[in-house]
Amino acid sequence: MNRLGCCLLVLGGALSASAAVLADGAPTRARGLGIPFEGTPGPNNAITDVPGVEVGQITRVSGEGLLKVGTGPVRTGVTVVLPRGRTSIDPVYGGFFDLNGDGEMTGQAYLLDLGGFVGPIGISNTNAIGQVYAGIQEWTLKKFGAAVPAVVAETWDGRLNDIGGFHIQPADAVAAIDAARPGAVAEGNVGGGTGMVCFGFKGGIGTASRAIMVGSRHYTVGVLVQCNTGDRTTLRIAGAPVGAALSAKWLPCYVAGLSPPDKQPKCEPEGSAGAPPPDQGSIIIVVGTDAPLIPTHLTRLARRAALGLGRLGSYASNQSGDLFVSFSTMTVHSDGDHVTTLSSVDYGSLDPLFKAVVEATEEAVVNALVAARTMTGANGYRFFALPHAEVQSLLKRYGRLEPAAGD
Amino acid sequence: MNRLGCCLLVLGGALSASAAVLADGAPTRARGLGIPFEGTPGPNNAITDVPGVEVGQITRVSGEGLLKVGTGPVRTGVTVVLPRGRTSIDPVYGGFFDLNGDGEMTGQAYLLDLGGFVGPIGISNTNAIGQVYAGIQEWTLKKFGAAVPAVVAETWDGRLNDIGGFHIQPADAVAAIDAARPGAVAEGNVGGGTGMVCFGFKGGIGTASRAIMVGSRHYTVGVLVQCNTGDRTTLRIAGAPVGAALSAKWLPCYVAGLSPPDKQPKCEPEGSAGAPPPDQGSIIIVVGTDAPLIPTHLTRLARRAALGLGRLGSYASNQSGDLFVSFSTMTVHSDGDHVTTLSSVDYGSLDPLFKAVVEATEEAVVNALVAARTMTGANGYRFFALPHAEVQSLLKRYGRLEPAAGD
Amino acid sequence: MNRLGCCLLVLGGALSASAAVLADGAPTRARGLGIPFEGTPGPNNAITDVPGVEVGQITRVSGEGLLKVGTGPVRTGVTVVLPRGRTSIDPVYGGFFDLNGDGEMTGQAYLLDLGGFVGPIGISNTNAIGQVYAGIQEWTLKKFGAAVPAVVAETWDGRLNDIGGFHIQPADAVAAIDAARPGAVAEGNVGGGTGMVCFGFKGGIGTASRAIMVGSRHYTVGVLVQCNTGDRTTLRIAGAPVGAALSAKWLPCYVAGLSPPDKQPKCEPEGSAGAPPPDQGSIIIVVGTDAPLIPTHLTRLARRAALGLGRLGSYASNQSGDLFVSFSTMTVHSDGDHVTTLSSVDYGSLDPLFKAVVEATEEAVVNALVAARTMTGANGYRFFALPHAEVQSLLKRYGRLEPAAGD
Amino acid sequence: MNRLGCCLLVLGGALSASAAVLADGAPTRARGLGIPFEGTPGPNNAITDVPGVEVGQITRVSGEGLLKVGTGPVRTGVTVVLPRGRTSIDPVYGGFFDLNGDGEMTGQAYLLDLGGFVGPIGISNTNAIGQVYAGIQEWTLKKFGAAVPAVVAETWDGRLNDIGGFHIQPADAVAAIDAARPGAVAEGNVGGGTGMVCFGFKGGIGTASRAIMVGSRHYTVGVLVQCNTGDRTTLRIAGAPVGAALSAKWLPCYVAGLSPPDKQPKCEPEGSAGAPPPDQGSIIIVVGTDAPLIPTHLTRLARRAALGLGRLGSYASNQSGDLFVSFSTMTVHSDGDHVTTLSSVDYGSLDPLFKAVVEATEEAVVNALVAARTMTGANGYRFFALPHAEVQSLLKRYGRLEPAAGD
Repeated sequence: MNRLGCCLLVLGGALSASAAVLADGAPTRARGLGIPFEGTPGPNNAITDVPGVEVGQITRVSGEGLLKVGTGPVRTGVTVVLPRGRTSIDPVYGGFFDLNGDGEMTGQAYLLDLGGFVGPIGISNTNAIGQVYAGIQEWTLKKFGAAVPAVVAETWDGRLNDIGGFHIQPADAVAAIDAARPGAVAEGNVGGGTGMVCFGFKGGIGTASRAIMVGSRHYTVGVLVQCNTGDRTTLRIAGAPVGAALSAKWLPCYVAGLSPPDKQPKCEPEGSAGAPPPDQGSIIIVVGTDAPLIPTHLTRLARRAALGLGRLGSYASNQSGDLFVSFSTMTVHSDGDHVTTLSSVDYGSLDPLFKAVVEATEEAVVNALVAARTMTGANGYRFFALPHAEVQSLLKRYGRLEPAAGD
Repeated sequence: MNRLGCCLLVLGGALSASAAVLADGAPTRARGLGIPFEGTPGPNNAITDVPGVEVGQITRVSGEGLLKVGTGPVRTGVTVVLPRGRTSIDPVYGGFFDLNGDGEMTGQAYLLDLGGFVGPIGISNTNAIGQVYAGIQEWTLKKFGAAVPAVVAETWDGRLNDIGGFHIQPADAVAAIDAARPGAVAEGNVGGGTGMVCFGFKGGIGTASRAIMVGSRHYTVGVLVQCNTGDRTTLRIAGAPVGAALSAKWLPCYVAGLSPPDKQPKCEPEGSAGAPPPDQGSIIIVVGTDAPLIPTHLTRLARRAALGLGRLGSYASNQSGDLFVSFSTMTVHSDGDHVTTLSSVDYGSLDPLFKAVVEATEEAVVNALVAARTMTGANGYRFFALPHAEVQSLLKRYGRLEPAAGD
Repeated sequence: MNRLGCCLLVLGGALSASAAVLADGAPTRARGLGIPFEGTPGPNNAITDVPGVEVGQITRVSGEGLLKVGTGPVRTGVTVVLPRGRTSIDPVYGGFFDLNGDGEMTGQAYLLDLGGFVGPIGISNTNAIGQVYAGIQEWTLKKFGAAVPAVVAETWDGRLNDIGGFHIQPADAVAAIDAARPGAVAEGNVGGGTGMVCFGFKGGIGTASRAIMVGSRHYTVGVLVQCNTGDRTTLRIAGAPVGAALSAKWLPCYVAGLSPPDKQPKCEPEGSAGAPPPDQGSIIIVVGTDAPLIPTHLTRLARRAALGLGRLGSYASNQSGDLFVSFSTMTVHSDGDHVTTLSSVDYGSLDPLFKAVVEATEEAVVNALVAARTMTGANGYRFFALPHAEVQSLLKRYGRLEPAAGD
Repeated sequence: MNRLGCCLLVLGGALSASAAVLADGAPTRARGLGIPFEGTPGPNNAITDVPGVEVGQITRVSGEGLLKVGTGPVRTGVTVVLPRGRTSIDPVYGGFFDLNGDGEMTGQAYLLDLGGFVGPIGISNTNAIGQVYAGIQEWTLKKFGAAVPAVVAETWDGRLNDIGGFHIQPADAVAAIDAARPGAVAEGNVGGGTGMVCFGFKGGIGTASRAIMVGSRHYTVGVLVQCNTGDRTTLRIAGAPVGAALSAKWLPCYVAGLSPPDKQPKCEPEGSAGAPPPDQGSIIIVVGTDAPLIPTHLTRLARRAALGLGRLGSYASNQSGDLFVSFSTMTVHSDGDHVTTLSSVDYGSLDPLFKAVVEATEEAVVNALVAARTMTGANGYRFFALPHAEVQSLLKRYGRLEPAAGD
């Protein structure tokens, strides 16, 4: 039985690049399983491949058994994406897309009307929007002398986490920012993704990147998702209809002894009963690039994340808050006489960027699924990790299994 | 009795600057009546003060008396605004705002998603959208080898014009484009504004501009309106509640002998009866500038036109199509390796532009009202010109009459 | 010298209707000064005239003199609007409009994509978004068992308030909700409006309503504003250009002895020097009605608030966050088989609602100006109340002074 | 050699249901090839399964060989969708989504601000927007006494058609409307889709439907596409990466003897050379349903069409105009006192509708591909039909071939 630990765990955002295999020996990334994707990833296959971008995460896991609001069990955290790292809150041009509105991402007025934002993007649970907002403001005020209008987004981890206990406080957001680093990014049950569920399996944080060329120039497009969305029955991996074919034994269940007597189905035998639960979640997608782009085009990039979700079989269910933010790390310069000079990839040359967003979104979600591990949360409710071997077997049946990269 | 002529009248877009007084001796522009406005206009106080911008108009007026669909009376026309004149259809960055959607402006997808448009803007009546669209495509295909996705907008002149007769044909749009010129712009009953009604009075085309500085640089903001909107009872001129105070005798009426027997009220004595008709119209507003601006900010400029309308007392009635397009004539350059260099007024320095749009919109609408002349159209229906003397008298009462400029 | 008190002041949202005159004998509402408006207000001329709507406010005022971040002086608060009072968080249909995006209102995705929201609307200062969000979630979780996705908006009181001190905490939002009442609403330096500046004068909270008929039915449209926006030089009251004509002596200044030596101009003689400060603010507008309306039309109502601002001379300056939310208190019913029955004022009959929004917005802002009192805040910075007598004198000059209602 | 005929061909919108096999014996629909899809189609698997909906099409094919602008070759047409058939232009509630804006769909202001539209939807080529708009206005004016603000959309058939010749005239739109029928819908090289190219193969019109239940009620969701979009290299059919695997011999080529000497590659041997051409197209998607829905939710339905495109591998390339309109055929009733009663599927019960849109969009595009036949157009340019046998072979390799339905 996979009982998660009892105590607070604070992770930095970075993993050494060699940590592509977990302690249990399972690969943590989709390519490690032999899942094929289009396009060429950057060195870390992560949003941090975009120069300057840093990711920080804190993870709070404690308690087990019956839910006691305010006490636990706690399965949550905070993930932050810093477009210019921890040393600058210079504005970035940005864009936004609302695929489905049952969720919150603050900063929409800045993104849509002014074309940009300032400071870290914070992602956590639904009942931490306020606290993370406050934390980002505190950090930027202290460090830069100005409380920024923060971009903060959420998905709902109330299935596994004592979400009514408000366990995330402003200091957690500050800790996540302080932990931000370039380099490899921890995925799965980490940061804001700690208690999340993705296409009926344990989900959470995932990331991917694409190294592209436009003309003679090299750019990177990076995507980070907090995946808590998706209907298992429609899940496609590499286009194959994996979700509908996976065994019923991976359906969520309640662990006897940890759960109230009336909660069904129980996990003995594991996940043996019940229909897939409805899609109750949301997905936050962050798209970053070093390609120079005006805000108009950045909003177009954000919109392409929906097409990546489409490849996975999503229909953006009604209760999902599917909110996407994008940014370019380019710098712009005022001439001192009130005119800013900037640049933007030519209107006619955007396709490599669009394609990269779609590809990296598709891969980032699968990375979240592959990295996440089975978790048992409040009331003994358990969501299973995507069963790697069974997925590989299905992909083989569908002619979509490749030799695993680096395994 | 003011019976309009019987025949087709084709006007160029330009008036000599000295023509600020009509043949009947009445001033044609608001400042000529002593109406005060904020800000400093450009030399022609017209959208053509933006360097390179040209305006062309054709006016079709024929017939009188009973409406015979397909025959007349005809009171309509076409107005075109060419951001780069007749010699270039290089794209311009643009923006868009929909204050009220009961109307058509094509090109919205280009404006909102791509951030710009190509070619002339055409404005005519509601049943000429298709014909003007086709005409602009024909002209650009013939002259530049490419049929552009045209920006075409409309207001409804069905009160005075045989709108069901489809009297505007593609060739009329081409003629309007061929007539385009820089310099002063004819206003009132001209071009697309020929048969329009504005705040219950005869309306039509109006324009104004502002010469502004941002830092050490000079820019121009120009506005052109086709005003067919507004509830007379709420009209404010220079802030004074002129609409509610004007005599009932200027209410629209049917000329005996030209109208069906059942149409009431008749015009003898003139406009003596009835309540003000409901607002049934629309307004198209074109905002142009030579200030460099990214599309994001151009959409913000377009939105400010609503505040100009607000000053006039508008509540954007339900049946009004209040659609605004904006553009910058700046040029941008690709470096030949798929990156465009551009410039934009600093984010923090946009207020002079915003203010100029509000001011010029307010003035352009009043200019349309002042320039328009009483018109009798189909079925002998008559809409009166804004009564200059009575307006001056009211403005005096409200402390808002200035010595008339240039009169 | 008007030195504000030293201690925490908690006000309920309601005033007795007779309290239209403050302790200093000055009228607190625009009509009390004889300022004319169009339309017929409801009994309290407040958003609470919409049946079921309650408003709650807490005001925090303490300290004076030099700014010490974290200590004070404190000039801030929270205002909440509860569409269904304190006893229900049943969803309301809603709408949203972003006139200028330099500000935050959470809940935009709900408003625009789902067409409604749940629970109280909270309004406070820029650095209290997170805390108010958290407070509303805490209150709704405790009272109704569900933490709602809150609609929280802000304007920046950093001129008068120690905004970097984060003096608003979640408990303040809860206290404001607990103080919510139907009936008359305190205006001016109260609640979220405590430290706000409106068209260069002391501003804050204002409200107004309109009693309208559509067909044979009576409806109410109510508006509440937190006004921290506006350029004094363009302010129009009742259409008269009051802002440009008011004495320079009401310009903001620093009180000697309370302010750092380098801060200029000093207030001796009062407000004697300097140009009007730039518009640095924002305005939050809440529009409520009991008229049944689908979300599509509620967004159109929200947009009309811009036209009310336009009447006041606003150009929606770049740094202003002008964000408007609307709601209908109608109830809808599911038939138990997944179909909801609802009603909506006919598409062709919306004009009375549109007009009411424009009128009530115009009046609510003037009410905020009239009710607010001169305030001296952090670093001895002082913003003056709108000078009632001088305004009356100007309105008389412009033929716009009426016999004061109820005075 | 597949030389298309020389003369005007006018087709009605309807095929007998038995005509699922063309004269050449090839199945015309995706299910006939054994391609699997999710969900249950309606009787015709067409948008006309939505009760009351009719589709009409006219097809113009004439000439071959060198392009002579104004003469031909002509490969174009018009498709119309009538939400309430030919006997009513009562308004329908509607929605809109712009996935990529390089295209035109008129009526956006009506759809987004008023929440509906009136009359037929017309789809044709890029240079027929105006003519189709005019034709719809003429028809509605003649038949119903009111020229409607038409919803007209386009994709660009300039690869195969003499698009600069403006061969579509208003009368063609009228003819398409007159040909409208319920029942099966002709697909592929027909109507507005005549000259279109989809994922590098001959494309055009496609349709599909889903029969769903919400609670105890049966509803239908229908989709019709005019597919001129897509990058062949990313095409997925039933999730399988078919596009990248198909032979190079199906790449477009120029037929010797019909094409200018410099045009390459030539078709001997067929399609033997060259890289896939870039995506230069667009896609128009019409989503209709008889489920009662407020406009807010109809816009959400329209947005789901993007997820259907995502399943096919689309990245919504920059030059594609991907514009989607949706409608509900429900009727609403005014109570005679200015209040409309309506109904809408419960907010919490929309998922079956969302899923149906995704599924039907995916299938409609594949139906367009399967139905279309190899076409040689202007300058002897040839686009190949999707090679059925090769696709079946690939699907078998990817474990995605089912026994063909009805074959």
